[in-house]
Amino acid sequence: MTLEELIANIRPLDEAAMQSVRARQDRLTKPQGSLGRLEALSIQIAGMTGLTAPHIQHKLVVVMAGDHGVTVEGVSAFPREVTVQMVENFLNGGAAINVLARLAGARVVVVDMGVASDIPAHPGLIVKKIGYGTGNIVREPAMSREDAVRALLAGAQVVADEAANGLDILVPGDMGIGNTTPSAAIAASILGKAAGAVVGRGTGVDDAGWQRKVGAVDQAIRLHHPDPADGLDVLAKLGGFEIGGLAGAMLAAASRRVPVLVDGFISTAAALIAVQIAPQTRDYLIAAHRSQENGHALMLEWLGLQPLLDLDLRLGEGSGAALALPIVEAACKLVTEMATFGEAGVSEKA
Amino acid sequence: MTLEELIANIRPLDEAAMQSVRARQDRLTKPQGSLGRLEALSIQIAGMTGLTAPHIQHKLVVVMAGDHGVTVEGVSAFPREVTVQMVENFLNGGAAINVLARLAGARVVVVDMGVASDIPAHPGLIVKKIGYGTGNIVREPAMSREDAVRALLAGAQVVADEAANGLDILVPGDMGIGNTTPSAAIAASILGKAAGAVVGRGTGVDDAGWQRKVGAVDQAIRLHHPDPADGLDVLAKLGGFEIGGLAGAMLAAASRRVPVLVDGFISTAAALIAVQIAPQTRDYLIAAHRSQENGHALMLEWLGLQPLLDLDLRLGEGSGAALALPIVEAACKLVTEMATFGEAGVSEKA
Repeated sequence: MTLEELIANIRPLDEAAMQSVRARQDRLTKPQGSLGRLEALSIQIAGMTGLTAPHIQHKLVVVMAGDHGVTVEGVSAFPREVTVQMVENFLNGGAAINVLARLAGARVVVVDMGVASDIPAHPGLIVKKIGYGTGNIVREPAMSREDAVRALLAGAQVVADEAANGLDILVPGDMGIGNTTPSAAIAASILGKAAGAVVGRGTGVDDAGWQRKVGAVDQAIRLHHPDPADGLDVLAKLGGFEIGGLAGAMLAAASRRVPVLVDGFISTAAALIAVQIAPQTRDYLIAAHRSQENGHALMLEWLGLQPLLDLDLRLGEGSGAALALPIVEAACKLVTEMATFGEAGVSEKA
Repeated sequence: MTLEELIANIRPLDEAAMQSVRARQDRLTKPQGSLGRLEALSIQIAGMTGLTAPHIQHKLVVVMAGDHGVTVEGVSAFPREVTVQMVENFLNGGAAINVLARLAGARVVVVDMGVASDIPAHPGLIVKKIGYGTGNIVREPAMSREDAVRALLAGAQVVADEAANGLDILVPGDMGIGNTTPSAAIAASILGKAAGAVVGRGTGVDDAGWQRKVGAVDQAIRLHHPDPADGLDVLAKLGGFEIGGLAGAMLAAASRRVPVLVDGFISTAAALIAVQIAPQTRDYLIAAHRSQENGHALMLEWLGLQPLLDLDLRLGEGSGAALALPIVEAACKLVTEMATFGEAGVSEKA
């Protein structure tokens, strides 16, 4: 599978399926429109999947992990070794994403896209390591253009492999100490915003740390001059192996008519890359929540997405998206399980 | 059980349990505060329940139904017989609340608090009929003060009976054609707002219908002069047998340290009554969502509640609260199922 083939397989929404679900919504036993955004969501999912009876049964959380050369600039509140420690935590089921995925009935796979050390083999771990951490973007590109393509295709392959077990929705998740810095750089580049507008506190840096992050983003963009219209160029220069993997996973999901429930700051940066590579990917994205991280709202606005939740989350891992899974599932079940006015013998509006 | 006994049993939040969960949140493997409102919610539930390991296992939706004399004023888009038809739909499992409760793992009981006709017996139906519809509030009180007390105690008894099967959270739901009009009247009275600020479109009245609703609310308040500080007076004069039942159910839940996940416009009107009767009830309320119905945001603000969801819902039945149940459950499970930094061997903030 080449990147070009992946892109070519992303089709427009299925208007006939959307029309069918829209019409059914108006026959269900409730005042028309009274289920608000759940109705719109069910119609959108019909368009994505092409199903007139949409369902969300097989739910997959893909947590991609990678390390970042830019951590030497003091941009994160946590030490770099936390990336691999948290991967172990994911594999042992003790992280927030594990708890939330279990509750939502989703399975979790963890992908080493570029952690700085080798991780002991584990049945839940998929190794797609592109490198041992990215380059420090304030001095060098995060990765070569070739590695950017490899990261995208590796992420796409994970989705292709997992789809064999059934796949109705993809929840992208991330782990990588330092990864709010490249994500902010990607947002600054693609949205054309100043670093200060998109850099946040990440895992909790103080004012000085925030200033260092703004400086790092500014410097990286001035050094590399990424072409905002070229998603591959932005990915290669500003990075994130896990961000590339997530963007590739999104392209693969879209190419299979699988909805993507986008999580927070890092996943949305990956969505920006995916959309710059294949604009039609946008139709397959559902925004799970608005992160508390500075700049996330701007990214969602640029993507034209309205988040389902707004609960001041800023954890990543796919946690906000896993939390929103039941809402997406509910939107679909209402279409297929509610009685119509005719079936229930309920009088319609006078 | 008297109303006075019920009120006397509502205790303050358990500060020790809250402190314990607050401290645990800071040891879990995530940046402190990164789970945002989920952290605050878990601490609040610890305070309500007194549990340092809070859990939401037994979930109960109580849908209370009643009819309203004010429907003769042309305040609803749907004919009155829809109340009983929708009760049948609930009992047959075909309504939105059934779908959402099934998804959330909640059981549903339906209570006839005052439907205008007799409903055939059904294992899922509890009959607590106070009357065959309320009086038309633009001409007479909705009910006597004695019937208001009876409605409250009947609702409380439903919760007491259901608690025998286990009860970790109460989701109040409503059904009653015309019931946004008394709910708006209750809000106008207790909040001290003009009718136009709290009257909405309900199930979908047109401009003329909306004007009739505003007129009916104005007229009812001018006729009865309810005392806003006396919840029983407001309930008796402006009504709703199902609203009284829901208020009583909330008082009973609070008296048993059971959190109440408040749904939309009608349930919140019932919460206003409950809080005017026993102000400490407020501590046991969680706002599930902000309804699209005009005035709901003002009611939540008066109660000091910030909703979890804002999805343009305006259906009632407890639907918005059932949709929010997994979020409340998630907040608790994160406390008990996430690993701590120590347990997982993850390095803490530098």
